[in-house]
Amino acid sequence: LQSKLPDIGVSIFTQMTLLAQETGAINLAQGFPDYDPPQELLEALARHARTPGHHQYAPMPGLPRLREAIAAQVARLHADAPAPDPATEITVTAGATEALYAVLAAVVRPGDEVLVFEPAYDLYGPAIRLQGGVPRYVRLPAPHFRPDWEAVRRVVSPRTRLVMVNTPHNPSGAVFTADDWNQLARLLSGTDALVLSDEVYEHLVFDDTPCMSARQHPELRERSFVLSSFGKTYHATGWKVGYCIAPPALTAEVRRVHQFVTFAVSTPTQHALADVLAADTADAHARGLAGFYQQKRDEFRALLAGAGWELLPVPGGYFQLARYDAFSPATDVAFAHYLAREKGVAVVPVSAFYHDGFDDGLIRFCFAKEAATLAAAAERLR
Amino acid sequence: LQSKLPDIGVSIFTQMTLLAQETGAINLAQGFPDYDPPQELLEALARHARTPGHHQYAPMPGLPRLREAIAAQVARLHADAPAPDPATEITVTAGATEALYAVLAAVVRPGDEVLVFEPAYDLYGPAIRLQGGVPRYVRLPAPHFRPDWEAVRRVVSPRTRLVMVNTPHNPSGAVFTADDWNQLARLLSGTDALVLSDEVYEHLVFDDTPCMSARQHPELRERSFVLSSFGKTYHATGWKVGYCIAPPALTAEVRRVHQFVTFAVSTPTQHALADVLAADTADAHARGLAGFYQQKRDEFRALLAGAGWELLPVPGGYFQLARYDAFSPATDVAFAHYLAREKGVAVVPVSAFYHDGFDDGLIRFCFAKEAATLAAAAERLR
Ligand SMILES: CSCCC(=O)C(=O)O
Ligand SMILES: CSCCC(=O)C(=O)O
Repeated sequence: LQSKLPDIGVSIFTQMTLLAQETGAINLAQGFPDYDPPQELLEALARHARTPGHHQYAPMPGLPRLREAIAAQVARLHADAPAPDPATEITVTAGATEALYAVLAAVVRPGDEVLVFEPAYDLYGPAIRLQGGVPRYVRLPAPHFRPDWEAVRRVVSPRTRLVMVNTPHNPSGAVFTADDWNQLARLLSGTDALVLSDEVYEHLVFDDTPCMSARQHPELRERSFVLSSFGKTYHATGWKVGYCIAPPALTAEVRRVHQFVTFAVSTPTQHALADVLAADTADAHARGLAGFYQQKRDEFRALLAGAGWELLPVPGGYFQLARYDAFSPATDVAFAHYLAREKGVAVVPVSAFYHDGFDDGLIRFCFAKEAATLAAAAERLR
Repeated sequence: LQSKLPDIGVSIFTQMTLLAQETGAINLAQGFPDYDPPQELLEALARHARTPGHHQYAPMPGLPRLREAIAAQVARLHADAPAPDPATEITVTAGATEALYAVLAAVVRPGDEVLVFEPAYDLYGPAIRLQGGVPRYVRLPAPHFRPDWEAVRRVVSPRTRLVMVNTPHNPSGAVFTADDWNQLARLLSGTDALVLSDEVYEHLVFDDTPCMSARQHPELRERSFVLSSFGKTYHATGWKVGYCIAPPALTAEVRRVHQFVTFAVSTPTQHALADVLAADTADAHARGLAGFYQQKRDEFRALLAGAGWELLPVPGGYFQLARYDAFSPATDVAFAHYLAREKGVAVVPVSAFYHDGFDDGLIRFCFAKEAATLAAAAERLR
């Protein structure tokens, strides 16, 4: 059997988590919190687990009550954009991963080009290639990882089917500004290229930066698939529930694929999320994430200050990038292995986010960890 | 946006469930039980919902303890085949649906042919086409729906990448015999075609028919992806957990795709299933399903006896096919709508299982229902 993805091995996140387990290193590699979801969400799942009649197929696009709760919250938080219609514009998926995959499978045909900003989450490229699509990469330069719109313009062509945006950006935390969206809108105007906007870290934006969704841009909204995930917002990466918001014609295509990729998402889990999202506390929870993670960012940076690491700015997300050239001229992969084995801290080498392994001498720490975990890691890193 | 699946609308299962809701008809259409999973499974989910540390990403191929429990049970139930290795041969997926999709995406390239027996579950054809594959259909003739191996031979060619088998078969319940597997093995010997064996109804086989897995055939095992689902075995279609068993080289390819389609499956749900599958009662539960569903089949058939329906034989699964020509010359779709609207029973027209809408005058009842539901439906149908 000849592989369709011969160059793809075990993902860097899995590799580094295994290395952490093997070496006993503190795992700041794979992006997940070391704390649990809010207690009321856990209680809601326990309750629905015991509820008769909540164990058979959910409707293919998602439980209506969950889609309604999503629509209502999005309408409240993005008051400047029309509310999404839960019936025709929201699809609940097996994590944002499945949403991403379904969008790509729905719109990319063999030979279609897809614009990808690098560094990029490791699935973008392979998931495009599985559709026969051709990723066209544009590098975001450190330390700010802001798009160079002239460089983007040179890559956009009539073959461009889709532009993939990730804001806040993994691994850098960079946030698309209103100006970035305007530049993108200008570039795409008159074409029929679509936009996939991966906004799973939407609530994790710091220093009062506003995080603008593609949905809040009137011209882009009509051509955008906007993805988010309860995994990030509710510290529940293991529950695997995300969603896609898109205009009805685009949603219809996502659902055509979703119906054959997973069909539907766990019924008791959707009920639990709907309970929590429909509660009075839901907006305060979402709005509170910025402060919650900003504090972790600031603590972690303070703990590492003056120790020789060059800490890059972190406008959003839950990752800290760092340059280690004061310590070592090694490749980022070698340095990451050294850190795990010799210093007891697992991280991700940023070259894993480039299709060509571009190595800019950066590693990524996940700071979605308890204060004690961050302190212990920082002590080892100092 | 031009659709990649322009001919695909809302699935027949969803359509009929909506029609049942709209008309108040008893829903014998979509295949799911109207009873709950075993109490110990519900309690296990409630317990793990409350367990700290069970809410972040599971390992990509599935929780080790769940894969080990699957391997151990498969080894006990298929004592004539080597036990699958949980580390390299089992992948936990978002239902058998995702397993099916991942196998197709992993092995089918544009232009590859895939042999599909019809009637076929509605996702087979579109999921093949999404990979650029070409479904080659071979009809199974009523009332026994057994393959005509001469007809199969005429369709197999060097372009055949994969043969899709479903045993017990949805919608007919037909079961592949040892002779069928031998015929298939002979046909594929010397080719590099692979086999996808969808065995989600594996435990639902009646009248002491043995249900043989592709894994139990020594020559086919090496080229087979065998799929099953906790949805069917534990009356939990809404939990969306299935798995794929395949030799290491094939499993590696499935995981390469699974990693980008959903990445992993709900952690608390996998823990709950692992508890129940590792318990002493697990084999008795699986073995008891045959008797449990045979009784439902027999009750339902007895309730309809003498009322003019021609009931086809049901060797396995949880569906009863019936010919209605004693009542009506209408198409099966028209007849299904008539039954829901005028008689208050929702069913599936079997033409929905044919890519070309072939209508043999058959409808499908799901008998995975409480005795009272079956009795009420039968009264309306008499
Ligand atoms: C699905 S594992 C990767 C988790 C993640 O988002 C990251 O570490 O970047
Ligand atoms: C995923 S809805 C279809 C359920 C089913 O297996 C059937 O009705 O055949």
